[in-house]
Amino acid sequence: MPFEEDLAAAQARIEAGFDDLFAHTPGLPLHDAMRYALRGGKRLRGFLVLEGARLHGAPDALNAALAIEAVHAYSLVHDDLPAMDDDDTRRGQPTLHRKWDEATAILAGDALQTMGFELCLAPGCHPDPAVRADLAFALAKAAGAEGMVLGQALDIEAEAGGATDLEAITRLQAGKTGALISWAAEAGPRLAGADPAPMRGYAAALGLAFQIADDLLDVEGDADALGKAVGKDAAAGKATFVSLLGVDGARARASELIDTACDALSAYGKGAASLIDAARFVISRQT
Amino acid sequence: MPFEEDLAAAQARIEAGFDDLFAHTPGLPLHDAMRYALRGGKRLRGFLVLEGARLHGAPDALNAALAIEAVHAYSLVHDDLPAMDDDDTRRGQPTLHRKWDEATAILAGDALQTMGFELCLAPGCHPDPAVRADLAFALAKAAGAEGMVLGQALDIEAEAGGATDLEAITRLQAGKTGALISWAAEAGPRLAGADPAPMRGYAAALGLAFQIADDLLDVEGDADALGKAVGKDAAAGKATFVSLLGVDGARARASELIDTACDALSAYGKGAASLIDAARFVISRQT
Repeated sequence: MPFEEDLAAAQARIEAGFDDLFAHTPGLPLHDAMRYALRGGKRLRGFLVLEGARLHGAPDALNAALAIEAVHAYSLVHDDLPAMDDDDTRRGQPTLHRKWDEATAILAGDALQTMGFELCLAPGCHPDPAVRADLAFALAKAAGAEGMVLGQALDIEAEAGGATDLEAITRLQAGKTGALISWAAEAGPRLAGADPAPMRGYAAALGLAFQIADDLLDVEGDADALGKAVGKDAAAGKATFVSLLGVDGARARASELIDTACDALSAYGKGAASLIDAARFVISRQT
Repeated sequence: MPFEEDLAAAQARIEAGFDDLFAHTPGLPLHDAMRYALRGGKRLRGFLVLEGARLHGAPDALNAALAIEAVHAYSLVHDDLPAMDDDDTRRGQPTLHRKWDEATAILAGDALQTMGFELCLAPGCHPDPAVRADLAFALAKAAGAEGMVLGQALDIEAEAGGATDLEAITRLQAGKTGALISWAAEAGPRLAGADPAPMRGYAAALGLAFQIADDLLDVEGDADALGKAVGKDAAAGKATFVSLLGVDGARARASELIDTACDALSAYGKGAASLIDAARFVISRQT
């Protein structure tokens, strides 16, 4: 399966990229904590950037891949805080505020968000500053109070009994998970000066399928394999795709969405094989 | 004094700018909290942007002024959190986590940082995307783990008995307060395509004087007039410019720095009168 090799290659490039970035920091707890937050993970968003760039013949896209992984890592660090989801483990290790403390977790998350923008805007991201500005502007739209943070805020409202129907949950997800996945998928065409519409269609369906798979894993997954707690949504009485559609209904919906995602890439032919495999992976994953 | 009129005009423009930006939000607690965090304040950073732009003949600089005020507001919201400084009041009102809750304060701060980048990168900031990219890249350098957040992290180390000499406190301040003030002062020349060196010299001295004045206010200030608690540094046994230099020594050093700041602007002649008055205001202020 080409996807598994391509994902492993993306993971290795991203790991090495972060190693380079952190090779010469002052070594304060802040910097150690940032590097810790950036370790591991599936790197699905970074993979989407690199693979989207390859598909469109964009020049080197490593900075953009590192940028989206930094913003994703920031969101997880803040999401895990006691005042938010209050999680003790992440990727099989103590969460950042458990390993250091809350103040370090707040600051490290803050600095990881900044780092995402810095990576997009650094000359090494793309030779044309107009492309860098465009990419970073899109990142701000995806990450902020109209995108990811809006989704997080809606999620908090949902836990307090707010969002309870499919439309509300879909809107919540479009922000919370969808916005960064869409940015990642569109980064390649943006870097190449190509039309981002096919990748946008792919990402919209993929992001939603990804969240449904996450909801399914929270019901059916194995905490050891996942490296984080499960059963949290049901315990919190939270409306999810699974509580609204049932396990079979949610699985069927995710499967339809993956078909939609793959159809969006039909014009690319065999060049998109790895992205199509990635979409199938998203709903079959166990972690 | 032209400065007072210019500052009032800058405050009014910035207030109106934020009113426009928040006129059409969905009105979630997140958005109300963001607007709350952006209220009031001296707007010194925004004033520096607008005045620096005027001095260099830059086109409209409102977006850049709003951007730095948004990033400054984010830093205050996160700094006030229980895990950080644990402050109950700010600008005479309850801090954001006291008025809403910690989760909303974390998210609102996160979104305010994002908003700062979005404002810099929006087409309305400057017609040339290369200028926008340059400005936002400089903001990332000023705000992140090499700038403001580094200063915050050093401040936490200092409270734990880390930084205790003048060199360490100066380095801490250069990040914590200095980096955003420098960005604000340099934004005008950047927007105008002019040499930022004079404004950089002005801002480096001004930022340090500003922090010394803050340390003096923590010793001598009036909590009611300041709208926040005083005497916190001494209570925490924290090394400050005042604990290291004494009250008179700190005041003398601030005064020298203001002379240095003003000298840096000598080439501008009378055009820089308002910035020179601003520097004098910084060390005479009571709030």
